[in-house]
Amino acid sequence: MVRFREPAIVVNFKTYLEATGKRAVELAKKAEKVSNETNVYVAVAPQLADLSAVAQAVEIPVFAQHVDPIKPGAYTGHILAESVKKAGASGTLINHSEKQLKLWVIDKLVRIMRENEMVSVVCANNSTISAAVASMKPNVIAVEPPELIGTGIPVSKAQPQVVSGTVKLVREVNKKVTILCGAGISRGEDVAAALKLGTQGVLVASGIVKAKDPYTIMREFAEAMKR
Amino acid sequence: MVRFREPAIVVNFKTYLEATGKRAVELAKKAEKVSNETNVYVAVAPQLADLSAVAQAVEIPVFAQHVDPIKPGAYTGHILAESVKKAGASGTLINHSEKQLKLWVIDKLVRIMRENEMVSVVCANNSTISAAVASMKPNVIAVEPPELIGTGIPVSKAQPQVVSGTVKLVREVNKKVTILCGAGISRGEDVAAALKLGTQGVLVASGIVKAKDPYTIMREFAEAMKR
Amino acid sequence: MVRFREPAIVVNFKTYLEATGKRAVELAKKAEKVSNETNVYVAVAPQLADLSAVAQAVEIPVFAQHVDPIKPGAYTGHILAESVKKAGASGTLINHSEKQLKLWVIDKLVRIMRENEMVSVVCANNSTISAAVASMKPNVIAVEPPELIGTGIPVSKAQPQVVSGTVKLVREVNKKVTILCGAGISRGEDVAAALKLGTQGVLVASGIVKAKDPYTIMREFAEAMKR
Amino acid sequence: MVRFREPAIVVNFKTYLEATGKRAVELAKKAEKVSNETNVYVAVAPQLADLSAVAQAVEIPVFAQHVDPIKPGAYTGHILAESVKKAGASGTLINHSEKQLKLWVIDKLVRIMRENEMVSVVCANNSTISAAVASMKPNVIAVEPPELIGTGIPVSKAQPQVVSGTVKLVREVNKKVTILCGAGISRGEDVAAALKLGTQGVLVASGIVKAKDPYTIMREFAEAMKR
Repeated sequence: MVRFREPAIVVNFKTYLEATGKRAVELAKKAEKVSNETNVYVAVAPQLADLSAVAQAVEIPVFAQHVDPIKPGAYTGHILAESVKKAGASGTLINHSEKQLKLWVIDKLVRIMRENEMVSVVCANNSTISAAVASMKPNVIAVEPPELIGTGIPVSKAQPQVVSGTVKLVREVNKKVTILCGAGISRGEDVAAALKLGTQGVLVASGIVKAKDPYTIMREFAEAMKR
Repeated sequence: MVRFREPAIVVNFKTYLEATGKRAVELAKKAEKVSNETNVYVAVAPQLADLSAVAQAVEIPVFAQHVDPIKPGAYTGHILAESVKKAGASGTLINHSEKQLKLWVIDKLVRIMRENEMVSVVCANNSTISAAVASMKPNVIAVEPPELIGTGIPVSKAQPQVVSGTVKLVREVNKKVTILCGAGISRGEDVAAALKLGTQGVLVASGIVKAKDPYTIMREFAEAMKR
Repeated sequence: MVRFREPAIVVNFKTYLEATGKRAVELAKKAEKVSNETNVYVAVAPQLADLSAVAQAVEIPVFAQHVDPIKPGAYTGHILAESVKKAGASGTLINHSEKQLKLWVIDKLVRIMRENEMVSVVCANNSTISAAVASMKPNVIAVEPPELIGTGIPVSKAQPQVVSGTVKLVREVNKKVTILCGAGISRGEDVAAALKLGTQGVLVASGIVKAKDPYTIMREFAEAMKR
Repeated sequence: MVRFREPAIVVNFKTYLEATGKRAVELAKKAEKVSNETNVYVAVAPQLADLSAVAQAVEIPVFAQHVDPIKPGAYTGHILAESVKKAGASGTLINHSEKQLKLWVIDKLVRIMRENEMVSVVCANNSTISAAVASMKPNVIAVEPPELIGTGIPVSKAQPQVVSGTVKLVREVNKKVTILCGAGISRGEDVAAALKLGTQGVLVASGIVKAKDPYTIMREFAEAMKR
């Protein structure tokens, strides 16, 4: 299993049709190509129904978009960490702004990921919430102001103080956690700005998934990380 | 795609380890064997991460355990009907007592299943709720008293009035919907009792998944349906 | 306690500041005045923190806006039917589109209201959901298309087929339940149109609460009901 | 309005019948008597429907058990901070283990309380969650292991490491926040043990509400705080 590594690009496929079924596999292969060519860590987070097919098709890390805080048992309709891991996932997004969770659930999921030796990427809407998350010691925190998600207005340029404020507050609590930022990231310069503000990478969705040429954009992102 | 047909056995894999990963595929193959040998309709509902592998391995119908009431788009961590269908599902459980839903969500999901030409199996805790569900015109209603689920005490014998009452109330509203019962069903005679009470089959989980020999139990169920 | 009676006007105070604290009591007194002058049944649904003050100030029926499906016990932060009743409520709204509930919860709340001899007013977004609700035998069903709520575009004129369709579907299942409609009702003629479509009254919020002169509007509503 | 003060006893009435309606007022008066006699800060958190009556009857601080993260507007069935404040509350419990909230909601509620100059008492299940909460800068954190709530087994004696661990982790993040502990606290010696472990008081429910003589127990608690 590929270890999480900085700097990182995590591509969230959401439930976009452009990244569903066969198109999920195709997009993941493009991400893998970029990773191979640039040696930058690129992970993909497809929908659960596509996860095993994606994981079989590529060697880059594959994350789930959500897992439920359960043990094996009578939990119809829930998402079991063990199941997701067997299908090939090496981590999961947690608490994305489109799937926000109770505080106890986040704590529990970080523990479950740790027990299963999987990567926990906890999303947070602002710097205060990021600092709160930092106490739970996930592997990765991704700060994303919900109002910028999907807009193409990059958080790293439109709200640099949110990003730098997050880095500051998180580091007071946790020196080790990887910090990503997301929302509106759609060009290499947005990625470069994110790194300059003290993050170790980006969480991105529509900027890649909805792009006419996702490969080129991902490549641009990766190049911006190497500088 | 295999059409829903009465009488029916629907096997819910829940999040049992006995039905996760490779073991999900193995269990589905046993269900397929029973279906082929007896010509009884048997469907399986594996976890989402196992769904595509199961659907590729067998020709019997495969259902999701849950779907979210969304359209394609920015819904991280949600379950999209189109995604589940592409992965090979021909229907989904809705509102299982372990994943109960808001009323509007059930209505929406039944419509989404209809638009996607998929089978909607809506679960209900009692006869009143079953009658309410009947107005939404799903393909299948499965009545399951939550207090009997997983107990091995069969609803069809311990609470026959719940089953017959459900059949009566549902039929006042909806002549066509298939009615299943579930909870505690673990022997052929429980299945026979269920049919005698007016249902068209059973929804079953631990009675099969946790059985020492799931094939033999499923076969017993199917035989009870042919009588 | 004033019995529920047709035709009826139910005024939902929501969490509007115009109907919070002392202003809740003032608005309830205006509703009482209209009820006394016209002999039309008018009930008010203030916020919970205002409920006892409102119930002490007026003799018209006072409803809660929501109750939780619990028994007395260890349920911090929940709303207990017994508590609401002791504070003076004679009923509650259930499943308002701004507080939508799980199907089992609606069933449970209708039963809890019945056991406590309180009035259950279950809201529904469309005619199918209204028919589903009818099977649970509440005292009142209020159909409200969410997209019209707060718009001032009256459901009874903009979507008459939703109202008449609801009446038709509900009556197939339940002859006795009172049917209200709501959303956008803001003039007497909207109320008259609602009655002509087969309803027995209206559920109204901003049309009254946000009006410059709530008394005059409520009076107009009541007059429209007497014709 | 009485300012929050250490050490503190916060009595959560939950939805116990013993603390509903008139009995809520009676219990609050006993709490006030203890506070007056001992000069220890005692606050009560009655059900919302009882809040205004309690607040009118006593001069000790009255808290809500829950508030929703909303502004005034169209939020039927929700609990508005302004409404609760007008009814006499000077604060609220947030995220009690029986009413657990999403992370963003807790952050939002702490801000709403601050804007309304009300006291925020955020509950947490364990020391990690307590540390996370500390970053959000509420006025008070109350750590309560859910498995001990209502048992009469005092957290301060059965799980002293949870309490001292919470104090340690919270203080690394936040020097000012008041730390309470709760769960199973039923005797003065439990309170003394809690203070010795570094807390500034207790959150208590059944230990008082269900006691044969709540006054005597509260008095015992207060005396233990003065030593």
